[in-house]
Amino acid sequence: MKIVLATRNQGKIEELRRILGGIDVLGLEAFPDAPEVPETELTFEGNALLKARAIAAHTGLPAVSDDSGLCVDALNGMPGVLSARWSGRFGTPDFGAPDRDRANLELLLDQLADVAAADRGAHFVCAAALVRPDGGEQVVVEGRMDGRIIEAPRGDGGFGYDPIFVPDGETRTSAELTAAEKDAISHRGKAFRALAVSLARPTEAGVSRT
Amino acid sequence: MKIVLATRNQGKIEELRRILGGIDVLGLEAFPDAPEVPETELTFEGNALLKARAIAAHTGLPAVSDDSGLCVDALNGMPGVLSARWSGRFGTPDFGAPDRDRANLELLLDQLADVAAADRGAHFVCAAALVRPDGGEQVVVEGRMDGRIIEAPRGDGGFGYDPIFVPDGETRTSAELTAAEKDAISHRGKAFRALAVSLARPTEAGVSRT
Repeated sequence: MKIVLATRNQGKIEELRRILGGIDVLGLEAFPDAPEVPETELTFEGNALLKARAIAAHTGLPAVSDDSGLCVDALNGMPGVLSARWSGRFGTPDFGAPDRDRANLELLLDQLADVAAADRGAHFVCAAALVRPDGGEQVVVEGRMDGRIIEAPRGDGGFGYDPIFVPDGETRTSAELTAAEKDAISHRGKAFRALAVSLARPTEAGVSRT
Repeated sequence: MKIVLATRNQGKIEELRRILGGIDVLGLEAFPDAPEVPETELTFEGNALLKARAIAAHTGLPAVSDDSGLCVDALNGMPGVLSARWSGRFGTPDFGAPDRDRANLELLLDQLADVAAADRGAHFVCAAALVRPDGGEQVVVEGRMDGRIIEAPRGDGGFGYDPIFVPDGETRTSAELTAAEKDAISHRGKAFRALAVSLARPTEAGVSRT
């Protein structure tokens, strides 16, 4: 069985291969003409489905995609679907930003500067979608990792907001966990493991949410 | 009758004098030792009360304060209480920001870049608090102005997010209205007019919300 993961990010492709062992996972680099799909939806689910539908239609193969982000309680759940572009133009070299991830994280820390420890709850969400071509099955699953935002970054692992997020039950940030430790509890790990169940056991057509 | 408005902003003081005509409105510049009150609450009401309570306790006079901000639907109601500091460090000269208001507005436009016209609804909120000293009356009123966020700034009037906000029923931005036109429909105009009623007709102690 072959599926295509709607990303050019080699790290994501390897991660899905590990979780789905036995299934042949292709990345978008195998389909140079695949369309760019802008993330115009206001929900993780909407964006994940948007990308998976477009790639299933283009490739004729079952397509998997994900949309992930950080939801901060004191920001009413934002940055959410905007997590990767939260700092807008200020995350570009024009404004002296070291890199996009760092600018996003620094902006978030500034926005939470006056927020007390008790109100710094947050969670990561990953929506993972599987769409089979030709109007076949569509599944979206959601994984979640709860925790809190600390006041200064710690750790070199992971990416994005990992250095300022401490998962519930941990004293280390996500960026201080090993890759295996993070996979075991992370929103992406949970979502992709749930999707692996759907891949092994196809359901009827229609959007189902796990 | 004398009241103190918990601000050093001369524009706000003049505005309240116009609305309250006949009441002697002092600004914080008359009380050089007045404490700085950080806006640590997660609601407009909470911040307005926090400031008014501190200033009433310090001055022994009835104190009025306000907390205002822009709530954007596609950002789950943010920037909200963080409106004035939304761009964090990126609104400072260190990062080449022209000024704080401009940086906040540019960041918001970037965050909404992929949001369709139908989803660009927003509203301004002003919570205005009146606190009488010595455990007397406490009132909070809220004014609201509904509208939508456009794609590029227009107009030189007003301040803050006015150049990208078009009130319902208008084709002009808040920054293209005259001061009198804006006062008549604005969140601040509505809140302060409601508070003027409370000032003229004292109620019993306790927090009441209009």
